[in-house]
Amino acid sequence: MSSEASPAAAAALIETDAVIIGAGPVGLFAVFELGLVDIKAHIIDILDKPGGQCAELYPEKPIYDIPALPTVTGQELTDRLLEQIKPFGAELHLNERVDALKRLPDGRFSLITDAGTEFITKVVVIAAGGGSFTPKRPPLPGIENFEGHSVFYSVRRIEAMRDKKVLIVGGGDSALDWTLALQPVAKSVTLLHRRDDFRAAPHSVEKMRQLVETGDVRLMIGQVSSIEGEGNQLTAATIKGKDGEERIDVDAMLPFFGLTMKLGPVADWGLHLTENLIPVDTEKFETSEQGIFAVGDINTYPGKLKLILSGFHEVALMAQQAHKYVHPEKKLLFQYTTSSSNLQKKLGVS
Amino acid sequence: MSSEASPAAAAALIETDAVIIGAGPVGLFAVFELGLVDIKAHIIDILDKPGGQCAELYPEKPIYDIPALPTVTGQELTDRLLEQIKPFGAELHLNERVDALKRLPDGRFSLITDAGTEFITKVVVIAAGGGSFTPKRPPLPGIENFEGHSVFYSVRRIEAMRDKKVLIVGGGDSALDWTLALQPVAKSVTLLHRRDDFRAAPHSVEKMRQLVETGDVRLMIGQVSSIEGEGNQLTAATIKGKDGEERIDVDAMLPFFGLTMKLGPVADWGLHLTENLIPVDTEKFETSEQGIFAVGDINTYPGKLKLILSGFHEVALMAQQAHKYVHPEKKLLFQYTTSSSNLQKKLGVS
Repeated sequence: MSSEASPAAAAALIETDAVIIGAGPVGLFAVFELGLVDIKAHIIDILDKPGGQCAELYPEKPIYDIPALPTVTGQELTDRLLEQIKPFGAELHLNERVDALKRLPDGRFSLITDAGTEFITKVVVIAAGGGSFTPKRPPLPGIENFEGHSVFYSVRRIEAMRDKKVLIVGGGDSALDWTLALQPVAKSVTLLHRRDDFRAAPHSVEKMRQLVETGDVRLMIGQVSSIEGEGNQLTAATIKGKDGEERIDVDAMLPFFGLTMKLGPVADWGLHLTENLIPVDTEKFETSEQGIFAVGDINTYPGKLKLILSGFHEVALMAQQAHKYVHPEKKLLFQYTTSSSNLQKKLGVS
Repeated sequence: MSSEASPAAAAALIETDAVIIGAGPVGLFAVFELGLVDIKAHIIDILDKPGGQCAELYPEKPIYDIPALPTVTGQELTDRLLEQIKPFGAELHLNERVDALKRLPDGRFSLITDAGTEFITKVVVIAAGGGSFTPKRPPLPGIENFEGHSVFYSVRRIEAMRDKKVLIVGGGDSALDWTLALQPVAKSVTLLHRRDDFRAAPHSVEKMRQLVETGDVRLMIGQVSSIEGEGNQLTAATIKGKDGEERIDVDAMLPFFGLTMKLGPVADWGLHLTENLIPVDTEKFETSEQGIFAVGDINTYPGKLKLILSGFHEVALMAQQAHKYVHPEKKLLFQYTTSSSNLQKKLGVS
């Protein structure tokens, strides 16, 4: 397993029983099944909200094959699962990506996120679906040199843009929202989109148009054809429009071209992979590393179907094995929520 | 496999793609997963309603571990699944028990129920839970000689009781309901219960008390200590009460002592069994017999948990293999209900 990130760099240290990577439906239900066997979990997700693909890609699209929910939207499914896991008080760490995972000498694991948080945990549950959602990179040669310094796919602090000449590229909600949010602090804001038609909320589009009219925002129709800079500092961009090219001064560029899914750092954790999937057994859904489980769309085994309902089954069986690592001294008695007052107490319903 | 029941005895013959044995939640969801891959199914259940244990044993008890349903009663879960499988129009055969299952020379299966119906099917899905619900038999030596002739655990036709001296034993709803229903047709009705306290609906108890007062029903408190008869015809029963024994004339006895679960005829179908469970693989959930699947509480494999949510996963994977037997000429393309207009058409939502 990788050990690039050093614990010394960690801004916060959290010790726990289990860390679940991925807050999609399967990751959320893992909280429930772990909770039933007294395992306290933290969930980490790269997105800004729980629900994974369900909430990010089809929040309003109906799903028809969740058992006993003849029709449910991705958002409603997420909300129902959040309600169901509430009794277990799992902490959700959003906007964070696990960059490093390694085993410690005492057998536990250290996970370090891109926000600098370190988790020390007895078990790890990878429920990362198709992988990390990552922003789509514009096809501009050399752009990677500027990323994180003067090219950003998300804005952590508005203040970092103060008095900068900002170029925002895109036509959706993110592009419009940041145009409106940065206009008051930036030296200048240029919004660039390939056509004069925006997929964003009408209200935001209207507000942007007003700012263009008063000269507070510049709207350009076209595409970035090249960028220039010194070291990792962007200095200019050339915009190709219908009527030719124009070179403008730029201190910071924010491309909002949507998200794509990549396996991401999981590939570097030393687990056996098969075509970017993690092979697991069907008894415990454990990976090639004891104590690291993989559930949901990211795993593979004979017969595997990438169905949410299969992930639900996988986390139930996983939790039994996780219990052996987290509470090795306790014997686990299999109980039903319908009849066990012990389980009902944990669920806060008795 | 057994071949006791001869096809010639069948009252009705039904040819189909799949027969599901058991209408519990897992059997019902099997209709859904089979339906998605164009497999038409019939369901057979020994109970008088769908839902299996959920509807029979805890219709009003909440279940907390169905994913995305933080709390749901057994009856509500059943109703939701019935709603979900409606588009596939599976026929439900209730009050029927599959007594014989054998493979035909052409590779298909013949199933014969105790109602005389014969099903010819390409695949069989055993979703029989803990087995068949069977009435609890009173501990009376020789009672099995009378069963089906003058001792009955359910009444198929009221007319069969006309002008008979009927002894009903029990204190629950079944005992009370049949006391009220048979009193007008029987020569005499004696209701026997071990104490003068009834678990039945108050309204029925009150009506029974009125009939006792008017002399139309005799109420006895005690227990049957022995029975007598000739061949399979009961003639008398001896009742032991607080004040001694009394021998009464009886033409028909109806004991209503509740239901118990037994593996039942499944044990005779030639499948490999392990402690009354059916071992299956975790790729297709197929038994030792090709084309016969076992899902839900009745199967076993490494890691198995008797959870409804596991049964849901099992039927999804089973359906992929069933497709190969039912539609060997068609290649199955894995699709999502959220994005496939083809699946949405089957579900009647596009």
